[in-house]
Amino acid sequence: MLKNADVEKLFLGIDGGGSKCKAIVMNENNDILGSGISGPGNPAYGFEQATNSITEAATLALINAGLEATALSKLNAGVGLAGVNLPTLYAKMQAWQHPFKEMFLAHDLLIACFGAHHSINGAVIVSGTGSCGFSCVDGQEALIGGHGFPQGDQGSGAWFGLQAIKQLLLSLDGISAPSLMDNVLLKKLSCTNATSIVDIIADKNATFYAQLANLVFDAAEQGDIVALAIVKEGAEYVNSIVRVLLTKKPSRISMLGGLTSRLKSWLDDDIQTQLSEPLSSPEVGAVFYARSKIVEQSK
Amino acid sequence: MLKNADVEKLFLGIDGGGSKCKAIVMNENNDILGSGISGPGNPAYGFEQATNSITEAATLALINAGLEATALSKLNAGVGLAGVNLPTLYAKMQAWQHPFKEMFLAHDLLIACFGAHHSINGAVIVSGTGSCGFSCVDGQEALIGGHGFPQGDQGSGAWFGLQAIKQLLLSLDGISAPSLMDNVLLKKLSCTNATSIVDIIADKNATFYAQLANLVFDAAEQGDIVALAIVKEGAEYVNSIVRVLLTKKPSRISMLGGLTSRLKSWLDDDIQTQLSEPLSSPEVGAVFYARSKIVEQSK
Repeated sequence: MLKNADVEKLFLGIDGGGSKCKAIVMNENNDILGSGISGPGNPAYGFEQATNSITEAATLALINAGLEATALSKLNAGVGLAGVNLPTLYAKMQAWQHPFKEMFLAHDLLIACFGAHHSINGAVIVSGTGSCGFSCVDGQEALIGGHGFPQGDQGSGAWFGLQAIKQLLLSLDGISAPSLMDNVLLKKLSCTNATSIVDIIADKNATFYAQLANLVFDAAEQGDIVALAIVKEGAEYVNSIVRVLLTKKPSRISMLGGLTSRLKSWLDDDIQTQLSEPLSSPEVGAVFYARSKIVEQSK
Repeated sequence: MLKNADVEKLFLGIDGGGSKCKAIVMNENNDILGSGISGPGNPAYGFEQATNSITEAATLALINAGLEATALSKLNAGVGLAGVNLPTLYAKMQAWQHPFKEMFLAHDLLIACFGAHHSINGAVIVSGTGSCGFSCVDGQEALIGGHGFPQGDQGSGAWFGLQAIKQLLLSLDGISAPSLMDNVLLKKLSCTNATSIVDIIADKNATFYAQLANLVFDAAEQGDIVALAIVKEGAEYVNSIVRVLLTKKPSRISMLGGLTSRLKSWLDDDIQTQLSEPLSSPEVGAVFYARSKIVEQSK
């Protein structure tokens, strides 16, 4: 068991997104002593749910590190949350009677950037359920894309899934060429015709569509022309976001998010060569962010 | 005032769609004596609302024709409704304790086809809020498209409106070229940036997007490259639907729906020459349908 004095040197790093909230406990040598995962952490989908998820993930991380849950009040926490780029949500979260020693709040892209580059300066392009680009250079932040589904988020998992469904409906109507994706999708949805497909997707959200993204890449990698066109269109959007981010002259740029491993190799060569591997996770970035704020405060 | 014997020769023709329900009273010489319009008539959005709308529109048409509302029970009614292509909705509507002498129920595309061609044989391509194609040839019906928004309904008003919003967000991000549509849209939405646009469209449906369709055509007609690309893509989808319908060898094919006047001139020349003007409205088609069913019954 750590001594009290050592406990107070620990930091919590928290990354709260739309589907889950991740927390780590990190010591002053940057060793991760424990981690925890809970439910949705984006306050746009509910303040109480988000704050409960943050507390739960942090508590799980403490327990995983062999500490008492009561240590929560002794630790500083860097907290990066989706949604708090909106000023009203930021203010609401700042007013939260949090259980930490001190809370350093930032939006999720800032801590992702901090984690990827070990510096506040840099840029990230994210493609997971949604997609967006972010840069922070000399204190100037820029957000590109991230406009939500279906009006934006091109090149994201949800976007790829929706394209697959659209294409299947066109194929069943005899309007577009058949694709390797058609039977895979029909089987996955347990459907045999357009009417049953439309029934099934009637009330589905981005998360549902994102689960269909992989089958587009599977078909494209087998040379399916229809899937190739979708993958190229999605990749071209990500190329474009990266090109806009590069005009901000970030020192480093990384690609993050669940679709990275599938999508990265489809980007233009000159874009791929610009991308650096992220050095650490967003949760680690949250700790770095908290530390940087403490240094600022002590000046 | 008509004599009782004459009243019994009148027909009600009803066309119930997602946003409104139209009714006419027609005599045996095909003169329209009165008409009425009420609210939504698609039973998929509520059985009670649809049946109330049908009764209200029919009653208004009777009154408009100078008849007593009580005459409802003396008239045969042809009733074409969106949604009743689904067997469960058809059965539910058939079981309705309707106020007419007899009710002849069909889906809205069948009566639209009957109205357009004065025959059960023919095809229609519809582009209004949504889009779809339908053919009826030798008793064989085919429905192409009409899969709903946003996964289908390409080339519809809602689709054009969504493309305009997508394009504006890309333009604001510096990813696509600016367009004449950008300022028109920003003004129409009373927005200045992407965040406020995303806020405004968050809970909007197809009807909202369809109201933005005209500005895409306005810009395209002024030579705007971005708008031209959208109009050409929408027109190409309608071309494709028509080509599939033509393989069914209908005797006539017509284009219907609120977007027809804007979209028709953008279709391929060989498609435009195939299109015949609709002879009558869907409500008139509903009367023809009812009459044809009575002839069938008397055989």
